[in-house]
Amino acid sequence: METHNVAMLGTGLIGDFYTMALHSQRSRDRVSVAYSRSEERGSAFSKRWGIPTHTTSVEDAINHPDVDTVVVALPNFLHEEVIALAADAGKAVLCTKPLARSAEEAKRILDRVESAGVFAGYLEDLCYTPKTLKAVASVESGSIGDVTWVRSRETHPGPHSAWFWDKDKAGGGAIVDLGCHCIEIIRSFAGKNNRPVEVMAWADTLVHPIKAEDNAVGLIRFESGALGQFEVSWSFRGGMDLRDEVAGTEGTIWLNHFLRTGYEMYTSGGGDGYVAEKLESAEGWLFPVGDEVSELGYVDMFTDMFDSMEAGRQPRETFYDGYIVNAVMDAAYRSADSRLWEPVDVEWRGGTTPRIEKKVTTHDGHAIVKEETLPDGRRKLILSDKDTGSIFDLVTDS
Amino acid sequence: METHNVAMLGTGLIGDFYTMALHSQRSRDRVSVAYSRSEERGSAFSKRWGIPTHTTSVEDAINHPDVDTVVVALPNFLHEEVIALAADAGKAVLCTKPLARSAEEAKRILDRVESAGVFAGYLEDLCYTPKTLKAVASVESGSIGDVTWVRSRETHPGPHSAWFWDKDKAGGGAIVDLGCHCIEIIRSFAGKNNRPVEVMAWADTLVHPIKAEDNAVGLIRFESGALGQFEVSWSFRGGMDLRDEVAGTEGTIWLNHFLRTGYEMYTSGGGDGYVAEKLESAEGWLFPVGDEVSELGYVDMFTDMFDSMEAGRQPRETFYDGYIVNAVMDAAYRSADSRLWEPVDVEWRGGTTPRIEKKVTTHDGHAIVKEETLPDGRRKLILSDKDTGSIFDLVTDS
Amino acid sequence: METHNVAMLGTGLIGDFYTMALHSQRSRDRVSVAYSRSEERGSAFSKRWGIPTHTTSVEDAINHPDVDTVVVALPNFLHEEVIALAADAGKAVLCTKPLARSAEEAKRILDRVESAGVFAGYLEDLCYTPKTLKAVASVESGSIGDVTWVRSRETHPGPHSAWFWDKDKAGGGAIVDLGCHCIEIIRSFAGKNNRPVEVMAWADTLVHPIKAEDNAVGLIRFESGALGQFEVSWSFRGGMDLRDEVAGTEGTIWLNHFLRTGYEMYTSGGGDGYVAEKLESAEGWLFPVGDEVSELGYVDMFTDMFDSMEAGRQPRETFYDGYIVNAVMDAAYRSADSRLWEPVDVEWRGGTTPRIEKKVTTHDGHAIVKEETLPDGRRKLILSDKDTGSIFDLVTDS
Amino acid sequence: METHNVAMLGTGLIGDFYTMALHSQRSRDRVSVAYSRSEERGSAFSKRWGIPTHTTSVEDAINHPDVDTVVVALPNFLHEEVIALAADAGKAVLCTKPLARSAEEAKRILDRVESAGVFAGYLEDLCYTPKTLKAVASVESGSIGDVTWVRSRETHPGPHSAWFWDKDKAGGGAIVDLGCHCIEIIRSFAGKNNRPVEVMAWADTLVHPIKAEDNAVGLIRFESGALGQFEVSWSFRGGMDLRDEVAGTEGTIWLNHFLRTGYEMYTSGGGDGYVAEKLESAEGWLFPVGDEVSELGYVDMFTDMFDSMEAGRQPRETFYDGYIVNAVMDAAYRSADSRLWEPVDVEWRGGTTPRIEKKVTTHDGHAIVKEETLPDGRRKLILSDKDTGSIFDLVTDS
Repeated sequence: METHNVAMLGTGLIGDFYTMALHSQRSRDRVSVAYSRSEERGSAFSKRWGIPTHTTSVEDAINHPDVDTVVVALPNFLHEEVIALAADAGKAVLCTKPLARSAEEAKRILDRVESAGVFAGYLEDLCYTPKTLKAVASVESGSIGDVTWVRSRETHPGPHSAWFWDKDKAGGGAIVDLGCHCIEIIRSFAGKNNRPVEVMAWADTLVHPIKAEDNAVGLIRFESGALGQFEVSWSFRGGMDLRDEVAGTEGTIWLNHFLRTGYEMYTSGGGDGYVAEKLESAEGWLFPVGDEVSELGYVDMFTDMFDSMEAGRQPRETFYDGYIVNAVMDAAYRSADSRLWEPVDVEWRGGTTPRIEKKVTTHDGHAIVKEETLPDGRRKLILSDKDTGSIFDLVTDS
Repeated sequence: METHNVAMLGTGLIGDFYTMALHSQRSRDRVSVAYSRSEERGSAFSKRWGIPTHTTSVEDAINHPDVDTVVVALPNFLHEEVIALAADAGKAVLCTKPLARSAEEAKRILDRVESAGVFAGYLEDLCYTPKTLKAVASVESGSIGDVTWVRSRETHPGPHSAWFWDKDKAGGGAIVDLGCHCIEIIRSFAGKNNRPVEVMAWADTLVHPIKAEDNAVGLIRFESGALGQFEVSWSFRGGMDLRDEVAGTEGTIWLNHFLRTGYEMYTSGGGDGYVAEKLESAEGWLFPVGDEVSELGYVDMFTDMFDSMEAGRQPRETFYDGYIVNAVMDAAYRSADSRLWEPVDVEWRGGTTPRIEKKVTTHDGHAIVKEETLPDGRRKLILSDKDTGSIFDLVTDS
Repeated sequence: METHNVAMLGTGLIGDFYTMALHSQRSRDRVSVAYSRSEERGSAFSKRWGIPTHTTSVEDAINHPDVDTVVVALPNFLHEEVIALAADAGKAVLCTKPLARSAEEAKRILDRVESAGVFAGYLEDLCYTPKTLKAVASVESGSIGDVTWVRSRETHPGPHSAWFWDKDKAGGGAIVDLGCHCIEIIRSFAGKNNRPVEVMAWADTLVHPIKAEDNAVGLIRFESGALGQFEVSWSFRGGMDLRDEVAGTEGTIWLNHFLRTGYEMYTSGGGDGYVAEKLESAEGWLFPVGDEVSELGYVDMFTDMFDSMEAGRQPRETFYDGYIVNAVMDAAYRSADSRLWEPVDVEWRGGTTPRIEKKVTTHDGHAIVKEETLPDGRRKLILSDKDTGSIFDLVTDS
Repeated sequence: METHNVAMLGTGLIGDFYTMALHSQRSRDRVSVAYSRSEERGSAFSKRWGIPTHTTSVEDAINHPDVDTVVVALPNFLHEEVIALAADAGKAVLCTKPLARSAEEAKRILDRVESAGVFAGYLEDLCYTPKTLKAVASVESGSIGDVTWVRSRETHPGPHSAWFWDKDKAGGGAIVDLGCHCIEIIRSFAGKNNRPVEVMAWADTLVHPIKAEDNAVGLIRFESGALGQFEVSWSFRGGMDLRDEVAGTEGTIWLNHFLRTGYEMYTSGGGDGYVAEKLESAEGWLFPVGDEVSELGYVDMFTDMFDSMEAGRQPRETFYDGYIVNAVMDAAYRSADSRLWEPVDVEWRGGTTPRIEKKVTTHDGHAIVKEETLPDGRRKLILSDKDTGSIFDLVTDS
């Protein structure tokens, strides 16, 4: 039975979530070393989670002899530097989303871990929610036919730490913070080998006194013809809205990860417990989820990471995936600026994907546009004339 | 007590819905004359609804002495001609959606009824659903603050009559058929006086063997900075998806008009009743609505039309609104083709709308980006430095 | 086109709802006279609804020459007296729920209108909600097979007027106020001719300083073997919970009439509009319904009443139904006291209903208890041995 | 880091679920030995789950030197015997629900493990669902005030194995199979120390050709005055309905564990994947859950069991709890037969619970029944006269 000892770099909200997931249930793996730039926060964090060692030296954390895996839970502008240190130390490295602030930076990170030959996993938790894993499997098994459209939405009233709101440190605003999730969810449904060809995005700063965008919508055109659609906002009211919708030629999938999961509660305001992340109020109708670290995918994510590491295979979410996400976001930012569809510039490894197939059946040689059964049992056909292309009705007994 | 006698032009599905609504409950108004191009269909229709007279002459229908109101329930390419006849006859005219196949055609229709001085109403039922009316009133009363984003979605497996699928007769595909609803719903929430400035649209023919688009997504930028987003499809699986979402600076509204309205039913397949429009199956889990003509807005729509007529005021939905919708759709089609944001060309009567207001409060002169209460009761402020614009945290007791 | 002129007896909340429904849409019928015990309230009410005449004399209201129909919207203890006056005047009489405070009182009322020969309708609005009407039609068409169980639930934080809380004036507490709805909904699904045989009820006064019950649950055993289950409360938190569930041998129906109808709204508290009845707050997540008078059944109810009156037929809900409901409530009160199943004492007009049929199929003479398809395509049968009755598995290819 | 080696007794559906949960994520614990009465099933099971040893001797399984924990996943009639063997062997024993077929049998089992001094845990998974754990914590923190009513419902089309349907082997029908879950869920919300005083139950065999009940409803009166309500059925159509509702003086909780958890899917029938337990169809609208073993509580349940074992404390669900559940079910069966409220006969360890408190406030000495704010801002009080108890309105400025 293999176990893993983790150096947790970063002790903010995401560090808490990661450690809760890593230590959850009957886990074999533990956080052994915590690194924080602040002695005070590192100490409190270690106490909170029963972590034996903490340090304000990132090098010491990474190079600690007990540690075999480095988890990067730091602000975006610090990723490249610490991943390089981990790669040099020959340690496995798992990095929070987004991988980088730009595709260029992401590519350097990817090259670094690949040349070092260390295991690298992209901590894209929302691609690992139990619902998403099962839904992606359904799509892959053909349950909804060819995917034609994917909507992924993540909106809430805004992040908790200052650096998120700082365009330079974060690399952008709501697109970089939330869109990275949506884009990878969209790819998971549209197909990882389905090339994102180009992006059209709208972004604006409508509500907050910041330079970065607080609202954005982006359309992603895939090689197959499928359309991805991401919607992000830092000004949503009512909690955290995490929803995905997938349309296929043979079916539909709707996932709601947060505000409507079968847990509904009204309270006049008593009690004192934690209810849910990004909640705006502690009274009235509230919509908690059962087990956040599980339902947000953290548990399944780390399971895949360590199982993959032990099996010597790539995890479901790799640094390459993180790089693709950054490239799509770069295109989105360019598009928001140029107001044009912008190509996704990327070193593509995914091969080609054929166009969504029109499965046209015919009647007397005319393509069947639609077929209905009338109340009297007869068939009504809407046909496209084989010669003229004009469209006409035909009611038939057969 | 005034009553109205209606000439119903067209006896297809929409004619049925209109007549059902007109005759519903304890209505004072009746369809007196039915016009169909087909004697057989006109006869069946009149029998079905107890209509005293039917004819295959549109002129006879319009000019019938009992008739004071003409309802146009004909395919798009026939609107202009019959509206002209009604205007000439000095009759009130109510026209189904879309008003026309293009803004140019719509403008001619608008000019004709305005110069004739007849009452003209645009039968945009989905702006009259009881939920929409109440939600629009909530928005107008300020319940959700300034509107920042509106999503309106209408998708189903495709229309029932051949002419819808014919680009020339219909003026387009799913955008013209379904997008017209979405655009006017979006305008209702964003504000009728909030000018739609430009449109970016994606449209494709993914599934059906037709020339018109069967899937499309459009973004509409309004003068206030708000974004409208319409999603239409003729290849959706699972019934008819009719949903609207509105985000505001102070709140959120989600409306589901069809597939999830609090009526859920599982059946192993027995029984023989009609369940709901556009339903794909008569077994398994089904999601009917209670009273379709009411919940889809037909009843409130005709009430507004006749009440307005009697009161000598404009109805909520006018031919001018129909013309604006056509102009937005024209821009969407141009954009789908040019791949650019396209301006909405329109003779605007709605005045100007100010930009969504950022209500910035300050702390020591620094703009407050976000404010949270920590578990220990202290306030955490995320601030934008008044001099440098850099963003920093501040925890304070006051 | 017939029209009706109504004397509205009572100007409280229910009088408002009735008048709103009567005057709604393009109605042919009007309230002509309003009666209130209070000159002030009667005057305000008449002004609010545009009613030409109001009076503090119930005799004057009933006997007003314009009036053909008397609507009783008064507290329970006043029903018998005014219905007698209306019967004597030969006017049609429509009475709010419950018909009376006891089956004995209800029977006297029923006898009085029957001997007078006047039209009498029981204003049980919740049996007329559009969802209920369609669901009952589905059940009657066989969509869910034989009904085995019906749950009807109505709970809210308590009524608005003092007399409801007074056991003598109302005839009871939450059972009389809310249970009367539930019982008639249950009968509508179980079958109006399916005799309610006996009742077991629990009732308690858990929260409010009153003598009447504020919480109760009752079980009703029907002749067919079906079970009805009503749940009522005056201490529910979160709004008004109106839900019905029906189980049948071939299907299931779930209706939600109020708190989850596809209209969801979050507001930080601005705006000033009315949102919904029995709402506890004006901020946070709120769940309005679209058109309350329609969705709560008032519109369809009055339509049925007047249409039935004109057609010379009995309405869907008669005074006899009201009498049955009172008899079931009497049994419930006796049961809550005796702690026994209590028979429903009633002069039954509904004939007999056979026991729910077990449609047993056999395999080699053994009754099939359950049948499943295994992953490998074979059939698994759970069988009851024809001789011993012992239960065993059998996996078979055929 | 402690680990546990489990002997899994029983290789049916529940054995699969348990093993899936035990081996899930990064678990330290493993099933080491599988026991099945059938060599074939034992072999297939061990292969399926990578279990090193399997046997058809229950003694060998229990006494295997590697094994420290015995999990009983056998039919009800075999529990007592194998638990005795495990107790004799001094092994920890975890037993599936229900603990026994009667309170008498359960008491013997409880006494046996207590006198042997072995760790014993009751595998009541539905009390461990993430939603239930969080909701119980909310209730315990006071979020909904005093609990007044709990509804727990479990219904589906019937179990998969023959013995469930056999009254002697199972100890009953749907009450024993499903009611045991509901009763313990109800106790979790009403309070484990809140004594279940008496039970009234209805049970009938409506649909299946069996002797045991296939439908039942039971009411449980607790010492505090709270009412529990369980609803079970083996004839529900549409999947597996698992819902809990809790009403309190200050709030409401609604949990939906299966059919509506934010995962909705329509498929025309393609694909071949497993979707969800007890699903009736593989096409149309389907409602899977994300991760069944997690959402049904299996993962958190085993975590609590092993963590408690290691910490030397009692788990959340003990054999004593299982015994109480059996006692409540015994009372339910007696009541279904006698048609009376039947006392719960039990050796109670839980102390006493006070009556739900009426928090009555007064105005001028009169108890306030209800308080509302009128549109004009004044307070409306409904008061109970301090001398006469009669109820009256008062509108006041203060």
